[in-house]
Amino acid sequence: MSRWPSGAQSRLERAALELFVEQGFAETTVPQITARAGLTTRTFFRHFADKREVLFAYQAELPTVVANVLADTPATLGPMDAIVQGLQTVAAELEGQRGYLLTRRGIIETDDGLRERELRKQSILSEAIKLGLLQRGVDELTATLTAQIAVSVFGVAVTRWLDQDEQLSLLQVLHETFTALTVFAKRLTAAAPTDEP
Amino acid sequence: MSRWPSGAQSRLERAALELFVEQGFAETTVPQITARAGLTTRTFFRHFADKREVLFAYQAELPTVVANVLADTPATLGPMDAIVQGLQTVAAELEGQRGYLLTRRGIIETDDGLRERELRKQSILSEAIKLGLLQRGVDELTATLTAQIAVSVFGVAVTRWLDQDEQLSLLQVLHETFTALTVFAKRLTAAAPTDEP
Repeated sequence: MSRWPSGAQSRLERAALELFVEQGFAETTVPQITARAGLTTRTFFRHFADKREVLFAYQAELPTVVANVLADTPATLGPMDAIVQGLQTVAAELEGQRGYLLTRRGIIETDDGLRERELRKQSILSEAIKLGLLQRGVDELTATLTAQIAVSVFGVAVTRWLDQDEQLSLLQVLHETFTALTVFAKRLTAAAPTDEP
Repeated sequence: MSRWPSGAQSRLERAALELFVEQGFAETTVPQITARAGLTTRTFFRHFADKREVLFAYQAELPTVVANVLADTPATLGPMDAIVQGLQTVAAELEGQRGYLLTRRGIIETDDGLRERELRKQSILSEAIKLGLLQRGVDELTATLTAQIAVSVFGVAVTRWLDQDEQLSLLQVLHETFTALTVFAKRLTAAAPTDEP
């Protein structure tokens, strides 16, 4: 999908991102954003609660996206196979957005409040995955752990993909990261604690 | 360790927690906290940047605690064994603090900003564990994944420990959670993606 389709919300997003990069997140005001976008502050507040939310616009859709992606994987798949397949679908969606995501990350790293907000996004994502797994009949502890590990793996993959200069695709980096997780899992199975607490 | 040793910082913490519970976090002011503690606001600001930080007082010590705990585990241990041993040490420290942690969690759940701050604490913990593993010679990808999974496991264990009514110790719940992780790891090893991305 294109990052900048027409429409007021996209114009506001683009204007906000430009200003955050040019003059800093803290220094940017909503009236500056709307002036740059050629829109009114009233229109802004119809789309976003505040300037911070411009960077988290798609978060509200996350639970639905995750539910749909998990529902689209065959019911016969185990939780981890469903996750692998689901994350590959999401990775394919993000493949064309590396430039946008680098810009966004650069802005988020400048501000503690934004960093905390970004972590909450991961927590919401994890909750959504957990719910999707529960609905597949996975027990709660496994669903919780699997969801958190899925979010960790995906976060690590996206970070590595943004950091690398080798033009690997996100799918390739995700695959690498899953391979490392498998190595970790094999070690863990060997290092499993004994049955006495 | 006792939660409420003497000293200004502890008196301020206790007064703040009482007020957060009695009248809500948002409604509590620093002057109210210092009045309850019988101390000045100047003393308050010598110990805490703001009222929010009262709930995160020990966070600054986390990286040092983690570094010490990991340094105390034998160098011959693999990353996961070191983590298991380290988390057991930390769990033993928390064992007597269930009441305090329940109160604290109750307060944090009332406020989005506090929830985000709590997630940042987990992120700082994860970074500290990663650093400790890197210093043991673990490669970066494994260190990152292991650290994040360790924080997930510990967080899940603490949540379950706080939620249960069966008077299990944190060490027992942590053990249960590691067992579930091991089951997960075995499934993952079976469900490992093939070598083509």
